[in-house]
Amino acid sequence: MLAEIITIGDEILIGQIVDTNSAWMGKELNKIGISVKQITSVSDDAAHIIQALDEAKKRANIILITGGLGPTKDDITKLTLSKYFNMPLRRDAETLAHVEGLFAKLNRPMIDLNRRQADVPDGCIVIQNKNGTAPCMWFDVDGKIIVSMPGVPFEMMYLMEDEILPRLQKAFELPFIVHKTILTIGQGESFLAQQIEDLEDALPSHIKLAYLPKLGQVRLRLSAIGNAEIALKTEVNLYAQQIIERIKTFVAAEDDVALEKAILDLMRTNSLTLSTAESCTGGYIAHLLTQHAGSSAVFAGGAVAYSYDLKESILGVKHQTLTEFGAVSEQTVKEMAEGAIDHFKTDYAIAVSGIAGPDGGMPGKPVGTVWIAISSKNQTIAKLFTFSNKRIQNIERSATAALTMLLNLLKQDLK
Amino acid sequence: MLAEIITIGDEILIGQIVDTNSAWMGKELNKIGISVKQITSVSDDAAHIIQALDEAKKRANIILITGGLGPTKDDITKLTLSKYFNMPLRRDAETLAHVEGLFAKLNRPMIDLNRRQADVPDGCIVIQNKNGTAPCMWFDVDGKIIVSMPGVPFEMMYLMEDEILPRLQKAFELPFIVHKTILTIGQGESFLAQQIEDLEDALPSHIKLAYLPKLGQVRLRLSAIGNAEIALKTEVNLYAQQIIERIKTFVAAEDDVALEKAILDLMRTNSLTLSTAESCTGGYIAHLLTQHAGSSAVFAGGAVAYSYDLKESILGVKHQTLTEFGAVSEQTVKEMAEGAIDHFKTDYAIAVSGIAGPDGGMPGKPVGTVWIAISSKNQTIAKLFTFSNKRIQNIERSATAALTMLLNLLKQDLK
Repeated sequence: MLAEIITIGDEILIGQIVDTNSAWMGKELNKIGISVKQITSVSDDAAHIIQALDEAKKRANIILITGGLGPTKDDITKLTLSKYFNMPLRRDAETLAHVEGLFAKLNRPMIDLNRRQADVPDGCIVIQNKNGTAPCMWFDVDGKIIVSMPGVPFEMMYLMEDEILPRLQKAFELPFIVHKTILTIGQGESFLAQQIEDLEDALPSHIKLAYLPKLGQVRLRLSAIGNAEIALKTEVNLYAQQIIERIKTFVAAEDDVALEKAILDLMRTNSLTLSTAESCTGGYIAHLLTQHAGSSAVFAGGAVAYSYDLKESILGVKHQTLTEFGAVSEQTVKEMAEGAIDHFKTDYAIAVSGIAGPDGGMPGKPVGTVWIAISSKNQTIAKLFTFSNKRIQNIERSATAALTMLLNLLKQDLK
Repeated sequence: MLAEIITIGDEILIGQIVDTNSAWMGKELNKIGISVKQITSVSDDAAHIIQALDEAKKRANIILITGGLGPTKDDITKLTLSKYFNMPLRRDAETLAHVEGLFAKLNRPMIDLNRRQADVPDGCIVIQNKNGTAPCMWFDVDGKIIVSMPGVPFEMMYLMEDEILPRLQKAFELPFIVHKTILTIGQGESFLAQQIEDLEDALPSHIKLAYLPKLGQVRLRLSAIGNAEIALKTEVNLYAQQIIERIKTFVAAEDDVALEKAILDLMRTNSLTLSTAESCTGGYIAHLLTQHAGSSAVFAGGAVAYSYDLKESILGVKHQTLTEFGAVSEQTVKEMAEGAIDHFKTDYAIAVSGIAGPDGGMPGKPVGTVWIAISSKNQTIAKLFTFSNKRIQNIERSATAALTMLLNLLKQDLK
């Protein structure tokens, strides 16, 4: 079963916001056996919306539309759909009561613009949006299901989870799509491809292998489509195990998880704790770790120590070390990691000190120079990296490099 | 001048990665007067790529393609373009030398798959990709410019900045597009729309106003198109000033900046410093602040204190406060903020303590319960929030709420 996603809004096209909705929707649809054929982002323009709808209908039976349902004049999705389906707007009593209830709860004055949120094309199924004022509209016309949802991510997500996905499952008999992903670190995709070339060539036609590189990591993803879920899973796992066996030195996780999640899982299983001492990554590593539920069992906390003062007071870096070698040095980063172990009482610690840029470069230490140390109770290892001149990229690459160093040390220690 | 973006790769459609490239490209294209008409994400499938290309050519004169240029078998963009333009592949000597140089530098063995990266359709202009092995290919056929770039963000970004954008500027006479964005906090979009309804109605037809809501923030964006850049900017600024004057209590920034950047700018101008004491936001606020160049002038650092121990040792929260009121309480969050001011020696501090979920809820304190405190040298204010049961969302909302509280206190103190 094929679906398409159409996102409506100039803000995506001019790059003011990143479309995170589509990726999330694609993932959720895949889980129930619906493949996304195309994602199309169009402007708040009636003719363009209609053109995108017409084209999508040629390729798919399910079309999920997000965005353009706000109360303000720039949002025209509802009016456009009303004309497209030739269904005049009617004021929906249930939606009106819901909108009035929301305003009463927030103790905010209600204006006519808000009441108009309860107008819907006469002929669609109205699905209440408990997190917002724009209702979800479900059209079932000529064998195609077209659903219009608000673009605000958490409103869309609740609607998808609670309403749209269950209704789609009921509406169609769906095949199974099984993905199995292997996360590798430390080698490029062509090297990995060469290592497993014969395995890849031997894959049956209903199983595809993809290589997904991202800053020092490559994900290998096997995708299979078929009717018997359990047999399909067994088959995919068999091929995956052959690949894992072949390249196991580089495997960080046998699942589609983030690198930091693989580390959290490994440490949790082994009852190990972790802390961080971040300078140029500015809390990003702590943030990566703490996005994951249950991270508190492993991660005790950490310091973001931008200034010399904080490196000394929270982490116990010696004043002399800082003045003699500078903040971005092997000596400092090692003392930061050891200070974290000491002050935060954890089994392992990550420390990063570097020049993220665009300013702060100096002779011999250009922007992108980053020292990373990993400390355990037995040893501290440190490594120098030279990344780029882009701040955000330097932060992300430093985090990946630090997590890779930690995972390698953990694998060695737990052998 | 209209452009379209086509991103190629199953990984986007199945939601394994979020397409951040398109937003970045849209923003950069806009700056030189090129509007993006549509963004289309398609699978690694030759027929589908060709269909998308054909459709895009009907709407736009510039088509920028990313992705599908890796050395592995799943990547088919180059072969597809070779067939589409009827240009057989030839091995490009300059590209081959570049790829060989990259492998020599990394001291990695070079295999035939890597050499094939130097094959290009005979008839395109080859632009070297100094950050990777896949060259950029520029096709100028039948009055349409079609450019194929790698999908790895930093490779694409360098190519766009150093090569594609300057070449597009040379190739076309471009109109000017001017955007002016006002960041507001604390009010919904329909309230704001009502406040400025007459101003919106009075806008000339070449200026559009859009409302962009996002977790407690609404951006108002004026977009104008025309030929005289300076006159256009003056005109847009005039309308923007009328809007700002009308809703100034809610204006956080008169520019398209992130909320935390508005705060950093305000604090930097007033020589004020900031620190953070984060529990449930886990370093996210520190990360938001430190993504911005120059943040070190304001942000001294902070603590991510997940455990009771760390709240006591780094932030000086009293043991008795924690045992009597719990970590998620007004008393604790106030002591965290005051501890940050004290220990990190800053003018202001943000403290957050809450239950991000999905576990950790308790009677009277469900998941989503978050206490936030802002402290200055004169006072500490604290506020209780009840967000959702989604972890990532709770982290993001807590950060926005904390930054909003800080900005409001700053505005009051600096009056």
